[in-house]
Amino acid sequence: MPVLDDVLRHADAALPRSRDALFALLRIPSISARPEHAADCVRAADWVRDDLAALGFQAARHATPGQPIVVAHHPGPVGYRGPHILFYGHYDVQPVDPLSLWTSPPFEPQLVAGPRGPRYVARGAVDDKGQVMMFLSALRAWHEAGGGIPARITVLIEGEEEVGSVHLEPFLEANKALLASDLALISDTGMWDVDTPAITTRLRGLVFTEVALRAAKRDLHSGLFGGAALNPINALCAALGGLHDAAGRVALPGFYDAVRPVSAEQAAQWRAMGFDEAAFLGDIGLHHPAGERGVPALERLWARPTADINGIWGGYTGPGSKTVIPAEAFAKVSFRLVSDQDPDAVVAGFRRFLADRVPEDARVDVTVLSGGPGIEVAADSEAVRAAREVLTEEYGRPALLVGSGGSIPVVSSLRRVLGIDSLLMGFGLDDDQVHSPNEKFEERCFHHGTRAHIRLLARFAA
Amino acid sequence: MPVLDDVLRHADAALPRSRDALFALLRIPSISARPEHAADCVRAADWVRDDLAALGFQAARHATPGQPIVVAHHPGPVGYRGPHILFYGHYDVQPVDPLSLWTSPPFEPQLVAGPRGPRYVARGAVDDKGQVMMFLSALRAWHEAGGGIPARITVLIEGEEEVGSVHLEPFLEANKALLASDLALISDTGMWDVDTPAITTRLRGLVFTEVALRAAKRDLHSGLFGGAALNPINALCAALGGLHDAAGRVALPGFYDAVRPVSAEQAAQWRAMGFDEAAFLGDIGLHHPAGERGVPALERLWARPTADINGIWGGYTGPGSKTVIPAEAFAKVSFRLVSDQDPDAVVAGFRRFLADRVPEDARVDVTVLSGGPGIEVAADSEAVRAAREVLTEEYGRPALLVGSGGSIPVVSSLRRVLGIDSLLMGFGLDDDQVHSPNEKFEERCFHHGTRAHIRLLARFAA
Repeated sequence: MPVLDDVLRHADAALPRSRDALFALLRIPSISARPEHAADCVRAADWVRDDLAALGFQAARHATPGQPIVVAHHPGPVGYRGPHILFYGHYDVQPVDPLSLWTSPPFEPQLVAGPRGPRYVARGAVDDKGQVMMFLSALRAWHEAGGGIPARITVLIEGEEEVGSVHLEPFLEANKALLASDLALISDTGMWDVDTPAITTRLRGLVFTEVALRAAKRDLHSGLFGGAALNPINALCAALGGLHDAAGRVALPGFYDAVRPVSAEQAAQWRAMGFDEAAFLGDIGLHHPAGERGVPALERLWARPTADINGIWGGYTGPGSKTVIPAEAFAKVSFRLVSDQDPDAVVAGFRRFLADRVPEDARVDVTVLSGGPGIEVAADSEAVRAAREVLTEEYGRPALLVGSGGSIPVVSSLRRVLGIDSLLMGFGLDDDQVHSPNEKFEERCFHHGTRAHIRLLARFAA
Repeated sequence: MPVLDDVLRHADAALPRSRDALFALLRIPSISARPEHAADCVRAADWVRDDLAALGFQAARHATPGQPIVVAHHPGPVGYRGPHILFYGHYDVQPVDPLSLWTSPPFEPQLVAGPRGPRYVARGAVDDKGQVMMFLSALRAWHEAGGGIPARITVLIEGEEEVGSVHLEPFLEANKALLASDLALISDTGMWDVDTPAITTRLRGLVFTEVALRAAKRDLHSGLFGGAALNPINALCAALGGLHDAAGRVALPGFYDAVRPVSAEQAAQWRAMGFDEAAFLGDIGLHHPAGERGVPALERLWARPTADINGIWGGYTGPGSKTVIPAEAFAKVSFRLVSDQDPDAVVAGFRRFLADRVPEDARVDVTVLSGGPGIEVAADSEAVRAAREVLTEEYGRPALLVGSGGSIPVVSSLRRVLGIDSLLMGFGLDDDQVHSPNEKFEERCFHHGTRAHIRLLARFAA
């Protein structure tokens, strides 16, 4: 395939330009969770739109009630008969706090020498700007050295993935014709390790809630009222302290009703991968697995649901002491779900769980901030086979089929609204510090990912 | 007593001036917990010092490693043979958050028409600037209309009561001669109700701690690590959620070992006071007593120890969602103590309690921010009898002997270091919103309190 080789060589030579383009996008602080960054989200959307337009795409920024969505089309070559690909990614990023733990400003991307070669350090370096840029770089290489975009492609880049993609599904519903396609291609997942590519066929879902527990109508002095007045922080801790039973199982009523055990065959495959949980935990300074007792590590991460308190606040949190019994306390509580668990049923179970555990005077509100079911992607489809082959060519070793503990709600939305499956081919690593200070992306992952996408596009066009 | 009557009449006429003086002091935002208000604490100290100097006191501001302390002396009339009185108060105030719940700026005192007449609304209105100002106004009335200060008086006004009086006891130790006296007079407590004066003979102590629970060495993505990595907020809630047992008793090991039951006689006296707990709780929007099941209300408030989480924070607390497992979580946890409970033993019990309840990977630190034992003041002393009599004269009904759920650590310090007892005669009300937004002080309480202090000084001089 002389053309493919030309395009790959071109991409090799263009790596510094691809890196510069990524850094330009990373400099835009497009934090979707923070209203004060709304204008930055628009800038990031425009940056992506303009980049695609320069590659010959018909590209537009679409308004939503939240952050805008970019959609771009290219018909591919005349006579193209392969699948119509819908590439999905997101330009928005997580908040950066605690800022004090960053070694460089989160929106001033750094090229740093790491143990595996150069790496990029910035918020969004891998999640998801870096992974989006791999695809844009692959398109650019085809555009400049391959005679043009080789496949029929729609690009859909949203700006609210980090806040639950709340406006994406209505957008899909309202734009079914615009987005009609055969297969979604998503690059927001990880490799098995830096040398071993992976395709993700299993994703956990997510229900993210905010709990408010209110008691007295004002803050109280703990001396005057302690021993008589309900303390909402005491009550919140007493309730949430029971989220897990002694075996590490989530204690919500009905929580496991729809959870199917992993098949013996699947469990055996995962055991054979030799996942080193001690090293996985050791990297982050821990030594003892949390979660369900007696369940193998990859099963806990990929095929079992969880409950986590992601934030908690109430009362006096400044320096020194204040003897207050506050009027209210809050927590952000989320549940990772697996396939067949109904997010609405989990929320209902959580509400019952809290109602059963708070004192009579406590007023509890549970607000659902986002929710999406877990999903399993067919492992034996044409697209997964194609991706396994190109990854094997690129890395010289077979790609693994893995699960991911994280959620990509768009996968279920695309299936439900547009009727298409998703191919999840991603190039992140476990130590990329996603959502944490000093998020990074290895340049070799970035570049191999670009080349793998170049190969995949050739395969679709063949 | 013609002179006393003159002084009382003078104080009645001078009420507007006394209020203006209080408002001037209230305008100084002397929040001792906040380092950025250190200069305001110095201003408040100087204000008090200058006011006392104008009354003929030899007054000075003394530096400490924290906020300064004002000490002022007056020898009283030639030939004075009564007790040497040490008046204690504090010029520092609590932080004002949540600021949004204040109906007027906390340091712009307001004269507001309330259901019981005019009231003063400001941070510190009653705790303790307003109560200090009653004594200063009483001194001023004697100075202007009574022929001079009628007793030998040392005034000690500190600036760290709201942060645990950490530098007061070393100051007492270092200045025993300067502060030598016969009896402490403290106005930082409350009345039984707006018509019924009270003397407080029982105070709870306080241990205030900050707990840090640390797990992974960085923040983690809950998708990638949920089900494998220890969540410190989950762990903190699970541990603190067990602070109370099902009967509402504090679950620390040994917590009740030194707690003496209230005598049958004392319990009968408190029952006879007809405390309406339903109304007490109804005022703050609650309907069900918290605390130990089956224990009478006043006993729970005055004679039983408690545990309260006064603040908690960790993870993501901004708007929207962030799927983080944080590296650490924090809480401020305090214990109200009764007489004979050893604060150090309570802290040791709390450390054991936590160590028994956190997972192996959790690193727990407990910092003690302040601590002081509970106290009982002799109810049959000369001073308490004198105070009962002047209060009965002022109000036309007998003063009650009560307990207080709050702590005044100075009482035990004064006894231990200077060997003196304290007379606790205060004029706050339960609904004064102490430590809360819209703290207030009723003008009639302020003025009766001023007059009662005028009478008490006459009694000492008699």
